[in-house]
Amino acid sequence: MNLADTIRAIPDYPKPGIIFRDITTLLGNARAFRRTVDELVQPWAGGKIDKVAGIEARGFILGGAVAHQLSAGFVPIRKKGKLPHETVSMVYSLEYGVDEIEMHKDAILPGERVLLVDDLIATGGTASAAAKLIRQMGGELEAACFIVDLPALGGADKLRALNVAVRTLIAFEGE
Amino acid sequence: MNLADTIRAIPDYPKPGIIFRDITTLLGNARAFRRTVDELVQPWAGGKIDKVAGIEARGFILGGAVAHQLSAGFVPIRKKGKLPHETVSMVYSLEYGVDEIEMHKDAILPGERVLLVDDLIATGGTASAAAKLIRQMGGELEAACFIVDLPALGGADKLRALNVAVRTLIAFEGE
Repeated sequence: MNLADTIRAIPDYPKPGIIFRDITTLLGNARAFRRTVDELVQPWAGGKIDKVAGIEARGFILGGAVAHQLSAGFVPIRKKGKLPHETVSMVYSLEYGVDEIEMHKDAILPGERVLLVDDLIATGGTASAAAKLIRQMGGELEAACFIVDLPALGGADKLRALNVAVRTLIAFEGE
Repeated sequence: MNLADTIRAIPDYPKPGIIFRDITTLLGNARAFRRTVDELVQPWAGGKIDKVAGIEARGFILGGAVAHQLSAGFVPIRKKGKLPHETVSMVYSLEYGVDEIEMHKDAILPGERVLLVDDLIATGGTASAAAKLIRQMGGELEAACFIVDLPALGGADKLRALNVAVRTLIAFEGE
């Protein structure tokens, strides 16, 4: 089984000229989902991770599975205003305007080893903000893990420029 | 460890008089998260489940872990307009007005055995709509699983009235 073949390509979504990579077909395929999780966490299989931080919303699915596989705790990183307790937040730039993500202020303790998880890395704006937030809380960010990389959009390089190790399983070039 | 003690109570959230049950503290506790998943899926540990359907957004975290534990596929149930491919949808009533959830139309095949998963069952409006959607696609709904039940709000009874088996781990009475 080629994992990339289990991902559905949706042309012209959400805008004309964009090919959307729909990972729901991978998640729905039991064998593909399990292999994805196993391969993604293989470097940390010894159990060195304390917390897995997942980015809302698709990163919650993969992050929940990764946390379970590594017997780690799970930390949700959400859009502004969705977490019920005291939060820390990070504002970041989009193509037009800004966005903001939040984490509970007691979600990561100083020195905890953290994996950041999302389904796909594109421009890397949200993931970079999440990485900064984890480090601001004193977390040791072991790596950022994604199923899909879109290298032409530069997100993985943006994370590496922050000295974040990046692990991805599938790359779709030229978009 | 008492699982209920790992859930944070937040008084007067989101409105005065409401005690919000914040499961992020359970998820962040590695032992509590693992025990929750193990206990919740114990009746299906033999691997009889084809798909785990999780309700956006917190149900994605637990659902991802449950799908991984059972080596099942994962199906996202989302708010209207968030899924990229062709969907089926279900409208349901809220206290004031209506809401709508969607699932990809090819996400569940006729005869597949499905577990529905969310973090908490309150009035059961969303979960009942999700149950109907799963059955409409021909899925055999084995059960609906939640970490927390708020029995006073009647959601579990609403599901049982639809002939859906309900599994919960913790009940907070009187609210």
